[in-house]
Amino acid sequence: MKYRAINFSQKFSLFKEQWQPKVIAEMNDYQFKVVKLQGDFIWHDHKDTDETFIVLDGILRIDFRDGAVQICAGEMFVVPKGVEHKPYAEREVKLLLIEPRGVLNTGDGGSERTAPNDVWI
Amino acid sequence: MKYRAINFSQKFSLFKEQWQPKVIAEMNDYQFKVVKLQGDFIWHDHKDTDETFIVLDGILRIDFRDGAVQICAGEMFVVPKGVEHKPYAEREVKLLLIEPRGVLNTGDGGSERTAPNDVWI
Repeated sequence: MKYRAINFSQKFSLFKEQWQPKVIAEMNDYQFKVVKLQGDFIWHDHKDTDETFIVLDGILRIDFRDGAVQICAGEMFVVPKGVEHKPYAEREVKLLLIEPRGVLNTGDGGSERTAPNDVWI
Repeated sequence: MKYRAINFSQKFSLFKEQWQPKVIAEMNDYQFKVVKLQGDFIWHDHKDTDETFIVLDGILRIDFRDGAVQICAGEMFVVPKGVEHKPYAEREVKLLLIEPRGVLNTGDGGSERTAPNDVWI
């Protein structure tokens, strides 16, 4: 079939590992990535780009140095570029991330939490 | 509250009109728009950009000159730039559109179906 929709649930069924974003589509030089998160991430920022979080299942909290936002399924949030943030999820949350190709999950500072980039599923 | 998630259902509750995309967020020079569609649109393309459709409620069909794709709630599809397409929905469908700021709903050729651009909700 030449034209085929991308189903989020089907993509999430293909992997179990958390904190490892998988690319499912591209729009111009932007990528759509699915990822499962649970627990605490590290503080980081993305100096050159905003980053979009769309929650598909569960509840995500993003901490900022001066506050926090809770994002439930059916909600989205755009973290402005250069703003330090730290994702957190008490229970596993399923997300769609949208950001330019090449953006690392840990931002500009690499770390042991840096996931392989540009992994398609 | 300084940081606040954007809730799709809440945004859709604010308007009834179909085929009139409303901007709910920006990421760099891209916009997220919610829109309600029903019935047939016109053939058009976007010469300079891909266009992303995420279906939040209902079923969208996009016709191409050489095929079609059905996109259900929980699915997405990226229409490549320059590819002629025509959205269709038998019953009302609720969509999230993602595309660069300034893109018209009818593509490069204006028409009576051209919606006001950059309307925030």
